[in-house]
Amino acid sequence: MSPLNKLTVIGVGLIGGSFALALKASGAVRHVVGVGRGLENLQLALARGVIDEIEQNAVTAVADADLVFVATPVGTMEAVFASIAPHLSDATLLTDGGSTKQSVIIAARAGLGARIVQFVPSHPVAGSEQSGAQAASSELYRGREVILTPLPENRPADVVRIRSLWQQCGARVSDMPPDAHDRMLAAVSHLPHFIAYAYMQGIATHPDTKELLRHAGGGFRDFTRLAASHPQMWADICLANRDAVLAELDRFEKANAALRALIVNGDAAALERHFAEARLLRQQWNKGSGLQAPEGE
Amino acid sequence: MSPLNKLTVIGVGLIGGSFALALKASGAVRHVVGVGRGLENLQLALARGVIDEIEQNAVTAVADADLVFVATPVGTMEAVFASIAPHLSDATLLTDGGSTKQSVIIAARAGLGARIVQFVPSHPVAGSEQSGAQAASSELYRGREVILTPLPENRPADVVRIRSLWQQCGARVSDMPPDAHDRMLAAVSHLPHFIAYAYMQGIATHPDTKELLRHAGGGFRDFTRLAASHPQMWADICLANRDAVLAELDRFEKANAALRALIVNGDAAALERHFAEARLLRQQWNKGSGLQAPEGE
Repeated sequence: MSPLNKLTVIGVGLIGGSFALALKASGAVRHVVGVGRGLENLQLALARGVIDEIEQNAVTAVADADLVFVATPVGTMEAVFASIAPHLSDATLLTDGGSTKQSVIIAARAGLGARIVQFVPSHPVAGSEQSGAQAASSELYRGREVILTPLPENRPADVVRIRSLWQQCGARVSDMPPDAHDRMLAAVSHLPHFIAYAYMQGIATHPDTKELLRHAGGGFRDFTRLAASHPQMWADICLANRDAVLAELDRFEKANAALRALIVNGDAAALERHFAEARLLRQQWNKGSGLQAPEGE
Repeated sequence: MSPLNKLTVIGVGLIGGSFALALKASGAVRHVVGVGRGLENLQLALARGVIDEIEQNAVTAVADADLVFVATPVGTMEAVFASIAPHLSDATLLTDGGSTKQSVIIAARAGLGARIVQFVPSHPVAGSEQSGAQAASSELYRGREVILTPLPENRPADVVRIRSLWQQCGARVSDMPPDAHDRMLAAVSHLPHFIAYAYMQGIATHPDTKELLRHAGGGFRDFTRLAASHPQMWADICLANRDAVLAELDRFEKANAALRALIVNGDAAALERHFAEARLLRQQWNKGSGLQAPEGE
């Protein structure tokens, strides 16, 4: 496929900036325009070569773009879509990097109107507790999964085009319906983020927080990494995917209560058996995941 | 200080084996005797040079030892102490690698009797989801913290000796009272392990476990690493430190319920504010911890 002449990235953070860098590195894009609220971040993106041009005016930014990538927090997307919709041409494709898909699709339908046909929703299942253009990397998506949730209105050729661009970033691409995506991600991503935040909130209310943290080790480090993630992004996700997140939280609380009862009752054998089941599942996943295991505690 | 002529390690797994390897590497020990229930594991330890001799008879194993390191699950320690107590000489020092200290001290008093004076309790705050002699490494303790909880009966010179040996493993050593240790570790280590196990148990009860796990990424990987830890070891710890673990679980559940209510009520601003507080605390810790951050999601 021929390269994109103009890619417009709205929200030049970790996700948007890494998309731009990866496509540049693979020669899939000629010129990247960056749009965002933080001028300092955009200037950093420009200095790092993540984008080639800063454009604060959405009208000019999306004019003649081959592709617009919306990578702002999901709660802001409807306003973003509405602001650019009148200025899109028929030839401009759109996609996004949002971690929830049903809410983004609702936002896109509301904001884009008839232009919805040009929007192919996508979710790169990659990220980091780092954020901003500073953290963007051409390698972020290599070997990671990107899930597309195409719309009935999408032209098949557009879906092929978006899939191909993600593949040029090094990603493995799969398709699924938006509701299946949201239920699945609630379980394996949104809930772990929520629990990590809740755990850190518990630590914050401890009478000896400072002293505690002096003795925290590698287990604490890995377990709490997700609590260092972008607060607005994750508040948005929890609310945008509220029903699925609450359903998964119910499931966790039930498992938590069952294990707690075993501690209260001093049932060593059952506690060990349940821990062993959990370990086996984690080990099976780790073997099949292809994700390099982090260092030990 | 002169090297130990004979170190006896009871339980040659990750903790015990790494202690032996680190002391060997630093020239602090001449001969290591390994004791354990699994002959295959001991043979592997011998083949890897973790130990120099396998001894299944506790009587012979501890005779003339300069130091006995007890590194079995904390629930087994009273039996271990009782079995070796009659065969210890006055010159033999003892320490342990248990993650709880009050329960280990109770077990040691019960098992060792008058020999309690020779036992200096220690807890290396290092570990991994890996276990067994296979996982032992001379570098496990480098830069990590070891907490001593000396007893009123201990001779100051013995405490100095144990501290020095841990330092020769590359560890930073601190002292604290056993109850303070247990409360602290319940918060920063035991509870994260418990929650990780509970979360994996929740995933195990999901109708689509297999499909879920196919889409789990790096966040899931780090968040669940602790659930791959040794089941008997952690069941023992949760029960040995039950009161403190339940107190910390209460604190977590309270924070969890408060954040859950914000989702239910759709309070985006408060949710973001709480997530931001959690993130700030995690970032402050990370900056000061000196522990290398793992790879991003």
